Amino acid sequence: MEASHARSWPSNGRRRVVISRILPEIDDSRFPVKRALGETLRVRAHVFSDGHDRIEVRLRYRQQADPEWRELPMRELGNDEWQAEFRLEKLGFYDCQVIAWIDHFVTWLEGFHKKAGAGEEIEVELRIGADLLDAAALRAPEPDAKRLGEWAALLRNPSLPIGERGLVARNPALTELARSFPDRRLESMSPFARRILVDPPRALFSSWYELFPRSWAAEPGRHGTFADCLRLLPEIAALGFDVLYLPPIHPIGSHFRKGKNNSVVSGPDDVGSPWAIGAKEGGHKAIHPALGGWEEFHRLQAQAKEFGLEIALDIALQCSPDHPYVREHPGWFRWRPDGSVQYAENPPKKYQDIIPFDFECVEWRSLWEELRSIFLFWIDRGIRIFRVDNPHTKPMAFWEWLIADLKAAHPEIVLLSEAFTRPKILYHLAKCGFSQGYTYFTWRTTPAELREYLTELTSPPVREFFRPSFWPNTPDILPAYLQEGDRSTFLQRLILAATLSSNYGIYGPAFELCIREALVPGKEEYLDSEKYQLRHWDWHAPGHIKAEIARINHIRKTHRALQETNNLRFCDIDNPQLLAYAKASSDHGDVILAVVNMDAHPQSGWVRFPAEEFGIDSRKPFQVNDLLTDTSYIWHDGSNYVRLDPAVWPAHLFWVTQYAPD
Amino acid sequence: MEASHARSWPSNGRRRVVISRILPEIDDSRFPVKRALGETLRVRAHVFSDGHDRIEVRLRYRQQADPEWRELPMRELGNDEWQAEFRLEKLGFYDCQVIAWIDHFVTWLEGFHKKAGAGEEIEVELRIGADLLDAAALRAPEPDAKRLGEWAALLRNPSLPIGERGLVARNPALTELARSFPDRRLESMSPFARRILVDPPRALFSSWYELFPRSWAAEPGRHGTFADCLRLLPEIAALGFDVLYLPPIHPIGSHFRKGKNNSVVSGPDDVGSPWAIGAKEGGHKAIHPALGGWEEFHRLQAQAKEFGLEIALDIALQCSPDHPYVREHPGWFRWRPDGSVQYAENPPKKYQDIIPFDFECVEWRSLWEELRSIFLFWIDRGIRIFRVDNPHTKPMAFWEWLIADLKAAHPEIVLLSEAFTRPKILYHLAKCGFSQGYTYFTWRTTPAELREYLTELTSPPVREFFRPSFWPNTPDILPAYLQEGDRSTFLQRLILAATLSSNYGIYGPAFELCIREALVPGKEEYLDSEKYQLRHWDWHAPGHIKAEIARINHIRKTHRALQETNNLRFCDIDNPQLLAYAKASSDHGDVILAVVNMDAHPQSGWVRFPAEEFGIDSRKPFQVNDLLTDTSYIWHDGSNYVRLDPAVWPAHLFWVTQYAPD
Repeated sequence: MEASHARSWPSNGRRRVVISRILPEIDDSRFPVKRALGETLRVRAHVFSDGHDRIEVRLRYRQQADPEWRELPMRELGNDEWQAEFRLEKLGFYDCQVIAWIDHFVTWLEGFHKKAGAGEEIEVELRIGADLLDAAALRAPEPDAKRLGEWAALLRNPSLPIGERGLVARNPALTELARSFPDRRLESMSPFARRILVDPPRALFSSWYELFPRSWAAEPGRHGTFADCLRLLPEIAALGFDVLYLPPIHPIGSHFRKGKNNSVVSGPDDVGSPWAIGAKEGGHKAIHPALGGWEEFHRLQAQAKEFGLEIALDIALQCSPDHPYVREHPGWFRWRPDGSVQYAENPPKKYQDIIPFDFECVEWRSLWEELRSIFLFWIDRGIRIFRVDNPHTKPMAFWEWLIADLKAAHPEIVLLSEAFTRPKILYHLAKCGFSQGYTYFTWRTTPAELREYLTELTSPPVREFFRPSFWPNTPDILPAYLQEGDRSTFLQRLILAATLSSNYGIYGPAFELCIREALVPGKEEYLDSEKYQLRHWDWHAPGHIKAEIARINHIRKTHRALQETNNLRFCDIDNPQLLAYAKASSDHGDVILAVVNMDAHPQSGWVRFPAEEFGIDSRKPFQVNDLLTDTSYIWHDGSNYVRLDPAVWPAHLFWVTQYAPD
Repeated sequence: MEASHARSWPSNGRRRVVISRILPEIDDSRFPVKRALGETLRVRAHVFSDGHDRIEVRLRYRQQADPEWRELPMRELGNDEWQAEFRLEKLGFYDCQVIAWIDHFVTWLEGFHKKAGAGEEIEVELRIGADLLDAAALRAPEPDAKRLGEWAALLRNPSLPIGERGLVARNPALTELARSFPDRRLESMSPFARRILVDPPRALFSSWYELFPRSWAAEPGRHGTFADCLRLLPEIAALGFDVLYLPPIHPIGSHFRKGKNNSVVSGPDDVGSPWAIGAKEGGHKAIHPALGGWEEFHRLQAQAKEFGLEIALDIALQCSPDHPYVREHPGWFRWRPDGSVQYAENPPKKYQDIIPFDFECVEWRSLWEELRSIFLFWIDRGIRIFRVDNPHTKPMAFWEWLIADLKAAHPEIVLLSEAFTRPKILYHLAKCGFSQGYTYFTWRTTPAELREYLTELTSPPVREFFRPSFWPNTPDILPAYLQEGDRSTFLQRLILAATLSSNYGIYGPAFELCIREALVPGKEEYLDSEKYQLRHWDWHAPGHIKAEIARINHIRKTHRALQETNNLRFCDIDNPQLLAYAKASSDHGDVILAVVNMDAHPQSGWVRFPAEEFGIDSRKPFQVNDLLTDTSYIWHDGSNYVRLDPAVWPAHLFWVTQYAPD
């Protein structure tokens, strides 16, 4: 940092190759790039040297557990840009680095060809080549060393005609052998390794279903249990979900317990908010007795797995005033001058049933360790997916430390960040390692807004670290758009969430029953929210959209194009009420084109599908098969007509294939 | 780099503020940002914390010679972006860093206001505030400490009515005082200092005139001298230039000396190329005896200065075979197996009069030191401007070390990089510290090409490190466009060079005499190039454009808008043969609009000048005064008509002012 730095000598000034920029990268290489298992990492670098010498560029990489680095040649794309890619075959952290050196043998060889071709005198050139071969021989094992030495002798041999010696120098076998033992003493290396975090496939492709177990008792008025949830599993699986997400399942505090509809007073029968964690029965490592015991929990877990459902737990790092931590670790909390513990507030709003940790406390290390132990506790009990509540109210440094630590030992876990907060903080949490994040999708309700937002999400650098999870509703958010909509609006939001993003979820059964009643119309709180009371749902109430959900999840499962997000490409369409976008699997084997009517009325337009970009021969007709209605059309290059009546389906979900008439 | 890194604890996990991105920056902060003396550096940073607490953000900076850091408050622009700016008042390197902390007092104060405003109970709040004031008192000197303590006592005083204590807490004098002693124990600091290189004003604004002294003898056939150049000074000054750039002035080698028109054979009278440096009379620290001695050189230097001209020397780090270095330091060169020294080549091209240094040699440190001593030698002799020949054929690491080293002791020097090479290398040399660089301007000959190229040059990140110097010709380059053009073409290129870029130069008198004869038509070598022979110029030959050059340089000197490059803004015009662009000084006190006809025939069009962007009230008419022809027009908002006949002037150079009728 000091001025003297400017004058310091490089460690070895003989290194001439410059490696100046490596992509992808995030914030000056401060954070890892994120990929999922089985994805390919494509690395680009700017590499060049002074002068006219030829350079050799390699990518080296290593999974954290590998003892050795692997090396790949990088190929030149032109304009001094080099590229290589490799498949990520293990979970966890990888490091990669670019190395490059001047290849004097290749430089010599090319010069030799040019000079010989121009009829120049090549005697001295042959002797230079022979010296380079001798040097290569010193780096080579036998029998290669011997062969190189023999070749060198031939190049130098004055009793051979010069033309014959020239032919030796042009021998491709010689060239290949000599190139295998390059002089790498002056190789340059990129200043720091680029780190990659490889998450499990579920981080990239997942369909979440959120429910409150306590509302699913068979008979009204009783507190539902894990056992009650068992009977839901076949149906949730039939809907096509693969993650069953439960709000906090821990004992709920009684002091300042919230009543129905977020009332600050509660009666003896009120069940409280599951996010007011901790009571005399325990805290974050205990189960609410009313939900059942460990046996019931493990049975739910095991049975869910049989239905292809993984259970996700909600981790909310906060306490009720009754949490054992408050008594046992007063140093982790902030205390007011009247001796009371500081509750959560955002003046003038107060959340007296919630006590935040004081992350500025002197005992921060023991606090961090205890919070980590919560995750480890549930990982030990088979939980692999966590939805983390309000991570933006805890320090970023804590998350970065925690997730790196957890991922080092348990790279198979998935963490969903519930950070409905400002954009930079939302993104920073993803940089710190969260596998997925909630988004602003919920409030993007026009084609133009979605196009702009999704373009940001799927462009660098965001695409390199942030995996969106699209939720049309949550227990906290019944958006105005749904309140004002109808069944078709729910379908529209479902299709958008499930096809724009490969990760999505719904809070059920409020979503599939198209529940639209807000506590205060226009505000986002549900009326009679399950957050504060038991509900009893009629899951078969008329007007539900379960069949449509099942169909869409089935399409997601059978179409690889919908199993990633960054392959999104918007298509032009001449009606601003319509949104058109396409996705293809990386091999172009599966191509989907979606057209969504975001208006309440029938709309039509001409959509322009760039067939060639998706490997489809645009000179021939191609077939589009609407997977929602099972109807097919033959399209031709250029613009094609669509019309969407929300009363039927608010969208087309076309599977595009080259038309092959019999 | 190891996996263990991922799990490491932060040094202090209590620091909650995140400083995540600082602009401007170049390649992960690897290189300094460049500015000129007197310019303002605007720094932006992304800064935020978890939760709802208020943060304080500061920019601290220090010139390398300053013992102390200075601190500036940064202001929030919204979206967690913060900004501050400061004027660069000293040459050389600056460092700047962003620091931020949570301000618990301000957080408390705002909460207090909200709670008191909402009529809540404030007794405990006042006690919390009193504790914060007591803590501030411990950080404050007297008498402030005493005052803060007294205020704290008032807030706590149970015998005062609560309303009165509330009024104390709202006292702005208290607030201001308490805020002056923030608790910075948990402040966060950006991980590395951003470095800024402040160059002299001439790095930003300069007009170069290049000539070969040996061609300026009063009588034909004689080798010109520095003394001959003395008589040119008044005229070059009258043309309005401020840098007089001389090709290498050193002894020229005789072995493999080039003859006229780059012939590989030379006769006894041939003078050789000035770039074949070194003979028995000396090398890079000697003067060619035929040009005169030290006394003549210093007289030229001194007299040039009196005419406002600074002499720039050409530094070409290469040797003729006769350079003393070749004999004295054989280790700095590459030797061929036949015992000869390796000459420069780019197969099959050979440059046997030029011996490159071997930058991969084991003795690289002594080589670097000697090369540095060449610059120091000329700096000692009063030279401040260097044009560096072919820097792209020497290692980038060498330049980075050399320039940082030279700049640390001599921040007043200016280095122009002659790197006609691939874009990434050209830019990398600028990152390594060159003050200015040659560009591709010479070959951008349509409005669309110039618009695209200049947009790249004046956008981040290029604008932060690269200062273009535009040359319509050089001794090596008589572009095809000029060969095929006429006097008006030369005028057009002059105007473009001198108004698009604040740094420009011409190789004279070939340029102002509109010399168009190539050695091989269509190739760029001048016929009878001064590089290889003496010329005798008639500087008053008919058709010269000296009056026009003088006018344009005068306009550059009197209009601040033309004294920088990054203020360029292209304007829309409805004729693709015309290029329109505007520049304004940063205070909008000087506004220039240029319209250039890049076709050989008269062209007209409607140009759209965005008056409001330049501080001009577009609801009123404004005046445009063509500085080339001294004609004025009154324009109104929107599009205005222009017509340009190259036979008269190929451009308008409008000075735009608000029209104020009497």
